[in-house]
Amino acid sequence: MVFKKVSRVKIPDATIRRLSLYDRCLEELKKSGNKIVSSSDIARKCGTNPAQIRKDFAYFGEFGVRGVGYYVENLQVDIKMALGIDRPWLCALVGAGNLGFALLGTDSLEKRGFKISAIFEKDPILVEMGSFQDIPLFSMEMMSQVISDLDIHIGLIAVNPDTALKVAHNLIDSGIKGILNFTPATLKVPPGIVLKNVDFAIDLEGIAFQLSNQ
Amino acid sequence: MVFKKVSRVKIPDATIRRLSLYDRCLEELKKSGNKIVSSSDIARKCGTNPAQIRKDFAYFGEFGVRGVGYYVENLQVDIKMALGIDRPWLCALVGAGNLGFALLGTDSLEKRGFKISAIFEKDPILVEMGSFQDIPLFSMEMMSQVISDLDIHIGLIAVNPDTALKVAHNLIDSGIKGILNFTPATLKVPPGIVLKNVDFAIDLEGIAFQLSNQ
Repeated sequence: MVFKKVSRVKIPDATIRRLSLYDRCLEELKKSGNKIVSSSDIARKCGTNPAQIRKDFAYFGEFGVRGVGYYVENLQVDIKMALGIDRPWLCALVGAGNLGFALLGTDSLEKRGFKISAIFEKDPILVEMGSFQDIPLFSMEMMSQVISDLDIHIGLIAVNPDTALKVAHNLIDSGIKGILNFTPATLKVPPGIVLKNVDFAIDLEGIAFQLSNQ
Repeated sequence: MVFKKVSRVKIPDATIRRLSLYDRCLEELKKSGNKIVSSSDIARKCGTNPAQIRKDFAYFGEFGVRGVGYYVENLQVDIKMALGIDRPWLCALVGAGNLGFALLGTDSLEKRGFKISAIFEKDPILVEMGSFQDIPLFSMEMMSQVISDLDIHIGLIAVNPDTALKVAHNLIDSGIKGILNFTPATLKVPPGIVLKNVDFAIDLEGIAFQLSNQ
């Protein structure tokens, strides 16, 4: 019984986002001592409905045991495999400003398997530090070589918005395949490169909507 | 022709998120000189499909002109009204650490109508500064009075995860109705309070999924 992508149709981004949420809810259910759960249990924990959960899971084939439910640990392994986070991903952080240091100050990325393995910064005074929290800190000029040497696949852009596009191009030229853009700059990337933009205002707009419709 | 919530069914969070994205795409289409657009134009810009857009809009009733399309400016006004961002929202930032300063250093929240009107911080040395970028900076003890005086509705929690739950309770006791939690702490809030959690790892998991399935 393997939880793998079986559907030929494009899996909606929202389904992928929900898989991440289900995994987090399962973690909490596991901590509360649950070994087997129903889709209703997961739905209640995640604030969604059981039909949605079954529909999301259906993209990945058969799983769960009829009349029994889901074994929490197995389901988590399967979801992590489906998401591609059953293995660690090495990341490069570009920009050691307030946001960069905030990202380095939390273990929430590493807990989910995303390890910041190199920091790139343009300020020579910071670069002279050589490392921060045991993570090597390099000048921008070293990007291509370091990313290749360390086999880094994902770049986190936390620089001044004015330089974000140039940094994105440099990352891509260095072999980076996935980019998480923390700046408000609009980036364009060539086909084959996965780009996601962090936009805090979207969450705030969701809050504004709910507060306006209560 | 008013773009308002007509559906009695619960509007999915994903639809609300997409409305925010459509508004951003419309802004770019407007900047490129477009005055009238089709759902296909919006879909192409946003990386979705026209059917999804029409389905999302359908929650809010009739709009657009048959055979003509959507007037960009009108549609933006309608979407902003639907989201509840046709008026500004005052926010309180709790925590003037790296993340707090990163949030203060960008205008991307204010551009979308979310204005940080007060900062609360426990470190007395920072509090002594009195303000940061013309935003008043207060001790935690002042929270209740300031939030009431300034009529602030949304709280941004950017403190140490250990104290996030206490801060959330203090915000709610002070009259805050919406909370954006930037910490990895799991918060529980009473009914009627809108809570959203910023989780950068979810975006990274979306990248990992796409890179694993290319």
